[in-house]
Amino acid sequence: MTIGETNSLTLFEDAPLELDGGAALSPVDVAYETYGTLSADGGNAILICHALTGDQYVAGPHPVTGKPGWWARLIGPGKLIDTDKYFVVCSNVLGSCMGSTGPSSTNVATGEPWGIDFPVITIRDMVRVQAALLDALGIEKLLMVIGGSMGGMQVLEWLTTFPGRIHSAAVLASAARHTAQNIAFHEVGRQAVMADPNWNQGRYYGAAAPDKGLSVARMTAHITYLSEDALTQKFGRNLQEREEVTFGFDADFQVESYLRHQGSTFVDRFDANSYLYITRAMDYLDIPSRYGGRLADAFTAARSVRCCVIAFTSDWLYPTVENKRIVHALNAAGVPVSFAEIETAHGHDSFLLEIEEMDVMLEGFLASAERTYAANRTSEEGQ
Amino acid sequence: MTIGETNSLTLFEDAPLELDGGAALSPVDVAYETYGTLSADGGNAILICHALTGDQYVAGPHPVTGKPGWWARLIGPGKLIDTDKYFVVCSNVLGSCMGSTGPSSTNVATGEPWGIDFPVITIRDMVRVQAALLDALGIEKLLMVIGGSMGGMQVLEWLTTFPGRIHSAAVLASAARHTAQNIAFHEVGRQAVMADPNWNQGRYYGAAAPDKGLSVARMTAHITYLSEDALTQKFGRNLQEREEVTFGFDADFQVESYLRHQGSTFVDRFDANSYLYITRAMDYLDIPSRYGGRLADAFTAARSVRCCVIAFTSDWLYPTVENKRIVHALNAAGVPVSFAEIETAHGHDSFLLEIEEMDVMLEGFLASAERTYAANRTSEEGQ
Repeated sequence: MTIGETNSLTLFEDAPLELDGGAALSPVDVAYETYGTLSADGGNAILICHALTGDQYVAGPHPVTGKPGWWARLIGPGKLIDTDKYFVVCSNVLGSCMGSTGPSSTNVATGEPWGIDFPVITIRDMVRVQAALLDALGIEKLLMVIGGSMGGMQVLEWLTTFPGRIHSAAVLASAARHTAQNIAFHEVGRQAVMADPNWNQGRYYGAAAPDKGLSVARMTAHITYLSEDALTQKFGRNLQEREEVTFGFDADFQVESYLRHQGSTFVDRFDANSYLYITRAMDYLDIPSRYGGRLADAFTAARSVRCCVIAFTSDWLYPTVENKRIVHALNAAGVPVSFAEIETAHGHDSFLLEIEEMDVMLEGFLASAERTYAANRTSEEGQ
Repeated sequence: MTIGETNSLTLFEDAPLELDGGAALSPVDVAYETYGTLSADGGNAILICHALTGDQYVAGPHPVTGKPGWWARLIGPGKLIDTDKYFVVCSNVLGSCMGSTGPSSTNVATGEPWGIDFPVITIRDMVRVQAALLDALGIEKLLMVIGGSMGGMQVLEWLTTFPGRIHSAAVLASAARHTAQNIAFHEVGRQAVMADPNWNQGRYYGAAAPDKGLSVARMTAHITYLSEDALTQKFGRNLQEREEVTFGFDADFQVESYLRHQGSTFVDRFDANSYLYITRAMDYLDIPSRYGGRLADAFTAARSVRCCVIAFTSDWLYPTVENKRIVHALNAAGVPVSFAEIETAHGHDSFLLEIEEMDVMLEGFLASAERTYAANRTSEEGQ
């Protein structure tokens, strides 16, 4: 796997990162991208949190695939998150494989890649590393933190753990805990990776990687990212470059070749062990359980943060009901929150797509956050 | 794989079975079970059609697992399908692995197991073998043919292909064609099998079987058999014999160990190549496409057959909308049909469970079928 040029900082060299699982990690590399310029008063910083298989190349282009960044649609000069105005930061999460410390990194104690000796991490651990990165970049407080899917889970942990460091928070297509079905799909993916003999208990670096297992994991996950309607609209029972079925096991149907393509291209840019660790972090997410089952109690220190939650009707991975749980808890905690359920047929991946209603909502939310943040800072200066 | 004692007949010895895919198969073994006694006038015969991984042991016990038959709840002396009154037949489908001819059978031309040289089959091919079995058993016409899931697909092909040989037909939790999402989940399962190096292009008989791949396939499929609600009710985020998560990759959550168990026990009783062939047969099912997209035209010769279709609200594999398509087509074709959508939280597997509303519906349907069948036969005798 080649990784393009990216910014990187080594953190937690003096004091280790204390992980939720009890282990301590030192040092921790963080690979990140920034776009735009930090204003003199530091009031224009926005942190973007990426999803399971995302990375820091949010505005792109991606060094492995050559494709535009995964949210290039939203972020750039003159775009919704205008990099002529804002300073945008996006870092590769702890445990991933695009330059931040993860299972493919070298364990300084052994000089070998960690493999599955890497400690199991949580979403909150990822957020702790992001907070340390902001320290290093001289950003005390964020105008906004925003993310979809696992990115939204990080935003929620910002609200629980560093509420004083964020002025506003946007959560898209996400959840405050993984359900049994969420865990089930991830477990199937992990078992697919581990069933590949190349996985070799996680010690495959320098040898053939468990590409076939990871590919099956990705194919399974990909089905959950799309709605049944989206699959029907996109592919239906259409055949792949043929008039009739072949009565064989080739990819007769377009949906088959599409999934195979999703699987085979994914392995070029992702590390199988990182897939295990990040899915595990998501499965372990259960914010209410840390507060005796009362999610609202997680947000009592976040009353000064303006929140926005967006759900998509056809998202069956993190459906509206899970997003509404977050909204109800924020309401109960007295945190100002706006909520929209957007009608789409595209399933969970809607947050990555061009959907006008989402853009209108985010544009208004960001403009309002900017106004109130400026007003807050002026009144603080006047005190 | 040991197979218990079962009845077996060798068919298509003189004239081969002409398959939808164009190949001809000869001979064809059919393994089957019967319960009860065929009446002198042959008017009490009921054919049960099994689902993807089911088999002829419908009233059990299963010779490999030792468990009761998969529909033992419904079938037996004094039960809903009372074997003191009815003669019940259930045969292992073509392509399967419990005694009927399939990819693990010996190809007489080579003396070796077929492997993936076995011809790809269709649901209708399975039904053709069932019809030949009834010929051999001296059953001209069935009082009822009934099945759920892939069993229901076979019932639909009885309606399209042998409508004159059935008096009534019951379809549970099924569909007349596989959707893109249905195909997608099956394709992931097939890729999981094929990714296992033990699969060896289907030539693993006499060596280690692709158990890991087949296990992952079964785990994935199993998620689709249960509803999200069922998984939440059954497991939620409950932990497996521990107080806290272990921060590792063991099965911390009950849903994980449940799925692993489903996968690992499945491989003891099922052949991986059969899994490929039967899922392929289901994916190829598209009855409307054979009739210019008009499903009703498939049923025009079935106007004298009484039909019953049952859907379950929480079934997202073959949801109510797909079952209703069958009902609307039967209606449009002038075939008498009763339909119920039953409220359950158990998902697709509901048809295998004890659900009172289903039992009431089936009991009434069977009693009515028996009355009308007797009346028809009396009036025919009087002519």
